[in-house]
Amino acid sequence: MAQAGPRLAIDAMGGDGGSALTVAGVARAAAHDPALAFLLFGDEAQLRAEVARHPGLVGRAEVRHAPEVVGGDDKPTLAIRRAKTTSMGLAIAAVKDGAADAALSAGNTGALMAMAKLALRTIEGIDRPALAALLPTLGHHDLVMLDLGANTECDARNLFEFAVMGAAYARIVHDLAEPRVQLLNIGTEELKGTGELRDAAAMLRAAPHLPLRFDGFVEANRLGSGEVDVIVSDGFSGNIALKTAEGTARFIGDLIRRSFTSSFRSKMGFLLSRPAITLLRQGLDPNQRNGAVFLGLNGTVVKSHGSTTADGFAKAIGVAAKLARGRLVSRIAEDLARTRAPTAPQAA
Amino acid sequence: MAQAGPRLAIDAMGGDGGSALTVAGVARAAAHDPALAFLLFGDEAQLRAEVARHPGLVGRAEVRHAPEVVGGDDKPTLAIRRAKTTSMGLAIAAVKDGAADAALSAGNTGALMAMAKLALRTIEGIDRPALAALLPTLGHHDLVMLDLGANTECDARNLFEFAVMGAAYARIVHDLAEPRVQLLNIGTEELKGTGELRDAAAMLRAAPHLPLRFDGFVEANRLGSGEVDVIVSDGFSGNIALKTAEGTARFIGDLIRRSFTSSFRSKMGFLLSRPAITLLRQGLDPNQRNGAVFLGLNGTVVKSHGSTTADGFAKAIGVAAKLARGRLVSRIAEDLARTRAPTAPQAA
Repeated sequence: MAQAGPRLAIDAMGGDGGSALTVAGVARAAAHDPALAFLLFGDEAQLRAEVARHPGLVGRAEVRHAPEVVGGDDKPTLAIRRAKTTSMGLAIAAVKDGAADAALSAGNTGALMAMAKLALRTIEGIDRPALAALLPTLGHHDLVMLDLGANTECDARNLFEFAVMGAAYARIVHDLAEPRVQLLNIGTEELKGTGELRDAAAMLRAAPHLPLRFDGFVEANRLGSGEVDVIVSDGFSGNIALKTAEGTARFIGDLIRRSFTSSFRSKMGFLLSRPAITLLRQGLDPNQRNGAVFLGLNGTVVKSHGSTTADGFAKAIGVAAKLARGRLVSRIAEDLARTRAPTAPQAA
Repeated sequence: MAQAGPRLAIDAMGGDGGSALTVAGVARAAAHDPALAFLLFGDEAQLRAEVARHPGLVGRAEVRHAPEVVGGDDKPTLAIRRAKTTSMGLAIAAVKDGAADAALSAGNTGALMAMAKLALRTIEGIDRPALAALLPTLGHHDLVMLDLGANTECDARNLFEFAVMGAAYARIVHDLAEPRVQLLNIGTEELKGTGELRDAAAMLRAAPHLPLRFDGFVEANRLGSGEVDVIVSDGFSGNIALKTAEGTARFIGDLIRRSFTSSFRSKMGFLLSRPAITLLRQGLDPNQRNGAVFLGLNGTVVKSHGSTTADGFAKAIGVAAKLARGRLVSRIAEDLARTRAPTAPQAA
C-alpha cells in the first residue's frame, strides 16, 4: 500500500467485456505502472473473484460494492437517478469526494457524460464540457481532437474554451509547452465557414498570452497529417469527422481483405506481408489509443471504448493516470484565469 | 455529324492538365460513346492543335474561341464579371442558350458555382443549389452525397430540397425507382442532432408521394456501407465528411507504403501482392468516379477534379452525358411539383 501515484476509480462493470475484461486491464496497467492504486466499483462477489485471478492486484485494488449497472441503452436521464447505486455513478462520486484522482468507464457514453457533469460540475469559466480523444497521425504524436459529440451546437465562446482545454490536454499527454491549435473548417481562408468559427478565431488571435499557438483554420483532409497538435470543432462536425474516419478505415480494411483474397498469388503475397499488415493494423488499432476524456469538469473522467480489449482498457487507464499526474483540471483553470487577466490593448 | 446524343459544352482550359488533358479526355469519351457531340471552349489555336491529335474527334468536336481563362485562385466575384470572355463562362452560357445539354469544367469550383448560379438560376421551388458527388461503397453502387460544400448553413427546407434533388440524381445514375434517402446525423435516434435536421426529417416523412424512400438518420461511419442510395447533409458537415474520407484514405495509403517497405520480406510480399494492391487502388481511385454535379439549377453543370487524368475527365463527361439523357432538371422540377400538389391530411 505504498503507492505514491494516482488512485483511479474504475467502473468495473461497464463495457462489452464485463468485469473479467476490466479487471484484466487493471492488472496490466498495475504491472506497467507500479505507482497506481485502484478502486473497483461493481458486484462485490464478482469483482473479488476476478481480482483473485491477478496476484499483482493484491493490496493495490480495493473493491467497492455497487448493486446496479448502467445499461448500454439506458437514457442519461434514467441513469442520473441511479448515481448512488450504479458502478458508474459511484466511480464518479469517488472523484468528487476526493477518494480517487480520476474515474474510468467503458460503459454508456451519454450516461457517463450526464452523470459526470451533474456530479462534478464545470470548471469556473467553462460553459460546457467537451469530449476529447487522441487520433492517429503520420507525425511524431497523436492529434488531440475535440469536441467529438458532447455539444451539437457551439458558439464562439464554447470553441474558444475547447481550444484552451485541448491545449492543456496536449501539454500533458505530449509534454508540449505551446501546442499548435487549429479550428476545423471547410477552407483555410479567413472568411470561410460559420460566423461562430470566425469569431472564435478572432478571440484566439486576441489572446496571445495563452500557452498555445493558434494557427487559423484546418480542413478535414489534414486530420492525420501530424502538422498540428490540437484540432477544435463543434461536437456535430467533430463527431462526423471521427465517424467518417472510422468508417473509411473499416471500408479500406474490407477492400484490402477482398483484394488480397482475389487470387492465389495475392494470398501468397498476403502471407509474406503479414508482418507489414500487423504493423498497419497497429497503426489503425483503436485500442492503441483508447481513452476519450471529458474536459472542462472539476475532475477527470475517461471513457474507454465499449468494445475494447484488456490491453485497450489498460491504455485508457494510462491516459487517466497521465491526466491525473498532469493536474489537468488545475491547468485548465489556470489557463482560463490568464484569459481573464487584464491584457495590454491590442493593435488594430 | 449524325449524333443523336447529348451535346456537351466543355471548358477545355480548366484544371491542372490544361487543354492537352481535357481534349484527350474528350477523345476517350467520344470513342466510348459514339452518340456524343462536343463544344470545346478555350484558346482556338491551342484547341485546334489538340483536336488534330485525335482523329476520332473529327466532325464531333466544335472549337469555340474564349480569349480568357478563370484562374485557380480567382475570386468568384471577379470570375462572374468575365462570364462572356472565359472558357468557363462561355461553356455555361452554351447550356443557358440551349446550344449544349450540359457543361463540364475542371476549373475553379467557387467560380464555376457562382457563374452557373448567376447564368442558369435555380429551378422554381429550389431555394439553393447543392454540390453532389458519387462516393465509393462496399455495396452494388456508389453513394450519392450532397451538399458537399455549396452551402455552409442550411435550414430544414434546404435539406428537404437536397433530398429531392439527390433522389432525382440517384434515379438517373443508378436507374432506381425509389432511392433510399437518409439524413447525416450524429446518432440515429429521432431526437438526435440539430433542430434543422429533425424538421427536415419531419418534412420528408410527411411527403410520402415523393419518388424516394426516406429512412431517417445515418451516422458518418456508414457512408461506405452501401446500405443507402442518397445521404443528405448541410454543406459544412458534408464537406467535413468528404475531406475526412479523402484524408483517411491518403493516411492509410501512406501507412501501407511504410508497412510494406519496412523489411525485405514485406517488400517481397508487396511485389507478389501487386495485383491486389492495384485492385485496392482502383477501389479508392477518385478518377474512377470523377464528376461532382451542381443540382438545383436550370441546366446541368458538372465539376471534374482539377487534378484528374484524361481517363478521369472522360468519366466526368460520362456523368454529364448520363444526366443530360436522364433529363435531370425536369425530373427535379417534376418531383418538386408533386410536393406542392394537394395531399391528403396527415395523421397526427
